[in-house]
Amino acid sequence: MSQDATSEGDLRNTGMSLRHDREWDYELERIVEEVEERDASRVGLQFPEGLKRRGPAVADDLRALCDDDVTFMLSGQPCYGACDLDTYLMRRTDVFVHFGHSPMKESDKIIYVPLFSNVDPFPILEESLAELEGDEVGLVTTAQHMNRFEDMCDWLEERGYDVHTRRGDDRLSHEGQVLGCNYASADIDADQVLYVGGGKFHPLGLAMEHPDKKVVIADPVNNVVTIADTEKFMKQRYASVHKAMDAEKWGVIFCTKIGQGRMEIAEQIIADNDDAYLITMDEVTPDRLRNFDMDAFVNTGCPRITTDDGPRFHKPMLTPQEYRIAVGDEPLDALEFDTFHGTW
Amino acid sequence: MSQDATSEGDLRNTGMSLRHDREWDYELERIVEEVEERDASRVGLQFPEGLKRRGPAVADDLRALCDDDVTFMLSGQPCYGACDLDTYLMRRTDVFVHFGHSPMKESDKIIYVPLFSNVDPFPILEESLAELEGDEVGLVTTAQHMNRFEDMCDWLEERGYDVHTRRGDDRLSHEGQVLGCNYASADIDADQVLYVGGGKFHPLGLAMEHPDKKVVIADPVNNVVTIADTEKFMKQRYASVHKAMDAEKWGVIFCTKIGQGRMEIAEQIIADNDDAYLITMDEVTPDRLRNFDMDAFVNTGCPRITTDDGPRFHKPMLTPQEYRIAVGDEPLDALEFDTFHGTW
Repeated sequence: MSQDATSEGDLRNTGMSLRHDREWDYELERIVEEVEERDASRVGLQFPEGLKRRGPAVADDLRALCDDDVTFMLSGQPCYGACDLDTYLMRRTDVFVHFGHSPMKESDKIIYVPLFSNVDPFPILEESLAELEGDEVGLVTTAQHMNRFEDMCDWLEERGYDVHTRRGDDRLSHEGQVLGCNYASADIDADQVLYVGGGKFHPLGLAMEHPDKKVVIADPVNNVVTIADTEKFMKQRYASVHKAMDAEKWGVIFCTKIGQGRMEIAEQIIADNDDAYLITMDEVTPDRLRNFDMDAFVNTGCPRITTDDGPRFHKPMLTPQEYRIAVGDEPLDALEFDTFHGTW
Repeated sequence: MSQDATSEGDLRNTGMSLRHDREWDYELERIVEEVEERDASRVGLQFPEGLKRRGPAVADDLRALCDDDVTFMLSGQPCYGACDLDTYLMRRTDVFVHFGHSPMKESDKIIYVPLFSNVDPFPILEESLAELEGDEVGLVTTAQHMNRFEDMCDWLEERGYDVHTRRGDDRLSHEGQVLGCNYASADIDADQVLYVGGGKFHPLGLAMEHPDKKVVIADPVNNVVTIADTEKFMKQRYASVHKAMDAEKWGVIFCTKIGQGRMEIAEQIIADNDDAYLITMDEVTPDRLRNFDMDAFVNTGCPRITTDDGPRFHKPMLTPQEYRIAVGDEPLDALEFDTFHGTW
């Protein structure tokens, strides 16, 4: 892979160059065992967006290992997390396999198959040490790197760090794990948190949720160390709140995805505001909201749609707390990142 | 409204000019009665795409007429027919109101509120007579004009026509009604069918399903009389079948919308073809199919996505019969329009 001056880091021999021949362990034997044990005739397979393309090959492998009368069904629904199970397919199959995310809630019906990255995190961890101040540090990562979490802790401790880790709340399966909507694992007694993982999606949420902490990003996929900078996001949040302060008609979105529903919050807003309308949908997209002639929207579903995709919508979209600020129920300086807790 | 040379007809005093001040009868009293009778606390409202914008005002009117403790919820899901009920919202509300389509299946839970057009069909009917050959004519229309169907029959009979009408199958509520996917009401003993309604969506389907009949379109909304011409569509169908003849890997789409599922057809293809993969989804969109590395797709869901939106997909998309032609199980000249029968 060639390297140019605009890249974030040296991508040779790292995650980016491994991307196309990366091998995942789909735990076929475990799936086949469950299929046989339950005498299943219909098996649903759900992959996250980035791995959907692998689905047919996994189905082929499973077909070769199972009886001919077992039908494998691939979910074509968008999937952005364990919060986003294809419940239609789940209810209509005997075994439902969800790949790539750790369990948000255990269930007899669902087999969760985590997919662990084979990228070596230690070279970039080594590089990230230059950004750490003092020896107290929090450590968090995503589901893809959980298999190395203990090793990373040990590695840091061997180098003299006092590593703070925590298991978040019910929404999280593992100590040190973060989700796009939940950073409870970083509620630790240290002023800096080291995030190990690919991309900026998680560390930006982490930094918004913990604005008092320095968030050092050790990204083994893009082979780069950076400091999370939420300024652009925060400016957008304040701008959206300000724009929405003049809104008369509010669309209050209740997301119907199994792990993204906060009906109590939505119903409370409707009960308090005669100019608020409850709108239900699974995918929250600009096209769907354009159908409604509202001045602003409150999204009680996935907070990352609000913060990350907000500018793509034709009208300001706020989190529930931002709504309370916009209508004057809370002061502007109370603004916090919207997080999701619990399961469903 | 100004009129230019490119318009299809004279739009003054017709549907197009009425569009913005068109009044619909939402049958509020009937809804309120049902809400009170069932002591409902949650009421779901679902509108077709073109009328979603009216939803909040209808909710306002209903709120004014009902107790304060009744919560109205607007479906934000796309809706393209009575086949496309928001089952999530339906299951979670005490009363579920579906506007704008006639019932595909009666249910205690659902109140169907038809929305009848207030456009006068007779001026354009008068104009359409010049296109009729002989006095035997079939008559069909859509749900929006069903309230004038008897009047239209009488009007034609008064002018000496022998009007053939028929109620289709279970999928259709009314005599003379057509759906985008079902033209059984035109299985009549006449060589020409008069279609009264807006746009070309329905008459093109009608002409594809009945290639032996002349389909005269009397469009009171656009104030124009035309003859349905399926040539462009048919060329696209043959081109797609030809392109798909080389396909090795097939994605077989099962649509999870309540009235669009044909699982037996999908499972049969999977059983017969080792290189076919069953993919389930509700909305069938180019983005969703791009996630799968297939050579061609068979859509067992809504046939109009295949015929009308086909060219928007990155790979050829066929109807089930077109698939059988592409793999050599049927001859090319057997090609017929894909229709949907039954309810769910």
